[in-house]
Amino acid sequence: MTRTNAQYRLVARPVGLPRASDWKYVEEPAPNPGEGEFLVEVDYLSIDPAMRSWMNEGRSYVPPVGLGEVMRAAGIGHVVESHHPDHPVGEVVSGSFGVQRYAVCDGKGVTPVDLSLGEAPVHLGALGFSGLTAYFGLLDIGRPEPGQTVVVSAAAGSVGSLTGQIAKLKGCRVIGIAGGPDKCRFLVDELGFDGAVDYKAGSVRARLKDLAPNGVDVFFDNVGGQVLDDVLARLAHGARVVISGAVSQYNSTQGMSGPSNYMQLLVKRASMTGFVIFDYAARYGEARAELAEWLRSGRLKERTHVIEGGVERFPEALLGMFAGDNTGKLVLAL
Amino acid sequence: MTRTNAQYRLVARPVGLPRASDWKYVEEPAPNPGEGEFLVEVDYLSIDPAMRSWMNEGRSYVPPVGLGEVMRAAGIGHVVESHHPDHPVGEVVSGSFGVQRYAVCDGKGVTPVDLSLGEAPVHLGALGFSGLTAYFGLLDIGRPEPGQTVVVSAAAGSVGSLTGQIAKLKGCRVIGIAGGPDKCRFLVDELGFDGAVDYKAGSVRARLKDLAPNGVDVFFDNVGGQVLDDVLARLAHGARVVISGAVSQYNSTQGMSGPSNYMQLLVKRASMTGFVIFDYAARYGEARAELAEWLRSGRLKERTHVIEGGVERFPEALLGMFAGDNTGKLVLAL
Repeated sequence: MTRTNAQYRLVARPVGLPRASDWKYVEEPAPNPGEGEFLVEVDYLSIDPAMRSWMNEGRSYVPPVGLGEVMRAAGIGHVVESHHPDHPVGEVVSGSFGVQRYAVCDGKGVTPVDLSLGEAPVHLGALGFSGLTAYFGLLDIGRPEPGQTVVVSAAAGSVGSLTGQIAKLKGCRVIGIAGGPDKCRFLVDELGFDGAVDYKAGSVRARLKDLAPNGVDVFFDNVGGQVLDDVLARLAHGARVVISGAVSQYNSTQGMSGPSNYMQLLVKRASMTGFVIFDYAARYGEARAELAEWLRSGRLKERTHVIEGGVERFPEALLGMFAGDNTGKLVLAL
Repeated sequence: MTRTNAQYRLVARPVGLPRASDWKYVEEPAPNPGEGEFLVEVDYLSIDPAMRSWMNEGRSYVPPVGLGEVMRAAGIGHVVESHHPDHPVGEVVSGSFGVQRYAVCDGKGVTPVDLSLGEAPVHLGALGFSGLTAYFGLLDIGRPEPGQTVVVSAAAGSVGSLTGQIAKLKGCRVIGIAGGPDKCRFLVDELGFDGAVDYKAGSVRARLKDLAPNGVDVFFDNVGGQVLDDVLARLAHGARVVISGAVSQYNSTQGMSGPSNYMQLLVKRASMTGFVIFDYAARYGEARAELAEWLRSGRLKERTHVIEGGVERFPEALLGMFAGDNTGKLVLAL
């Protein structure tokens, strides 16, 4: 049986916003797994802001994707051929399979997916890295207490929408920052946030003064740039700023912009802390069990935005995300 | 007895570096203390970078000095007239007396000085806010462990020189960042630092790569700006950045510059935390006792740079500090 492997390989390092021509679409025969290996047919790919940082030269929290290599992506698939004792044909698995239809694996970094906890795409969102990032970033780094005010940026996105809801579950007052009236309505009407700030509609700082008059106890930041500066100006005494991402800066052609209000950390006796979700691997199970229970009971809502059409639509999907097209977790169905 | 009170009053809010004309020199009769008050003759004034921030409009960690008011300054003096039961004539006291020869006090914020622990000016430095800031900022916020690498900026200054020495006492490898070869020699030869980086002599980042090849575990920052960015680029996994000040930015005419490398906090799972020494008031005693013991045993060296000449030399003293003239604690003798 000959399987055709559709792929996107990185061929250029973008300056600013990526272009479709930064990747090359390739079709080649799918490789045959050797002894101790298995072949995964990928069904869903996770489309993430962090993909942009993997395209840059130089190591970030992971090494860059090499030129000529298959573009990195997390995915969910099923085993179609196996010479590995632990991964039989038919098993549903998640892993960093890349932007391609078929991936050969030796088992490292591949995890069986428990479909009883949720459908496959949900394991890329609320039960995947989005949910785990929201869970550990908010609870371990942000450490919100009941009654405190939690602000989340990119709040209608995959991580942000889950972070805000978990904060609500913990008894916090939650304000989301998002772009446009539709996303803001979604946060308040669908997800139960206490307030939303449309960063495209005026001063975030002034709106926060109204919505969080006693200051911001926890800020979970996915965005950086002006939004980060605006929230720093409104911190409460002893606030915790959780650095989860900086999507406003990933496509900057002028280098990263640092938070010029960072001395508010001194004035407010506050901290700003970064984290990488991989450090919590030993605790994924406990978090996933709690997230699944919240989903099952309806206390946590997940929204998955699925783009159909296969590998070929990858550049369009990623660029659409940077344009703010999606609400919730963006997934490409292959 | 008529006492003449020489004072500097703030009369303009500077843009950029202050000028002598931002204060007005005034001589007026010293006030008479009323019931429950006492008169302090000020002997030494503490000259601090933070003074610049008190000249700006708008609240920082303390309210600004009002136009027309006596410039704020911490000092040491002795009681020359008293209608207060707890503060007899002759008592040596510290407090925020302002840039003036005589201050009337009601006792609030005034602390008796224990001269058995050290001479009067030392109570503005190693036994005063400089020592307390170094002690709590390093030990409580930085939490260095033996064998870890600690970097200090403005390392030849009052707070920095004490911070580095305390880190040495705790078994750390200590690198200081300072301006010019004399200060760098002072750090290594006099204070026992393991290395020094002259920020005026080339790339701080490259020098740190040589001197701290395994990265920086604790950065105690008094400076901000480019130095902060350079050290952020060299953080070790799990590093703690202590924000104690940002003297490079206080005189900026273009607003504060934020650390553009702040996403290294994420890459390195690091934190950046601000603090204000006043929050530790309940623990000043324990810290002062330990600092005094270190001084007495010669394990901690303090250098006080005393400018003689009285109140009139205040603007010159402060501007000299911003030009980097002093090594150690700068004190104006009245």
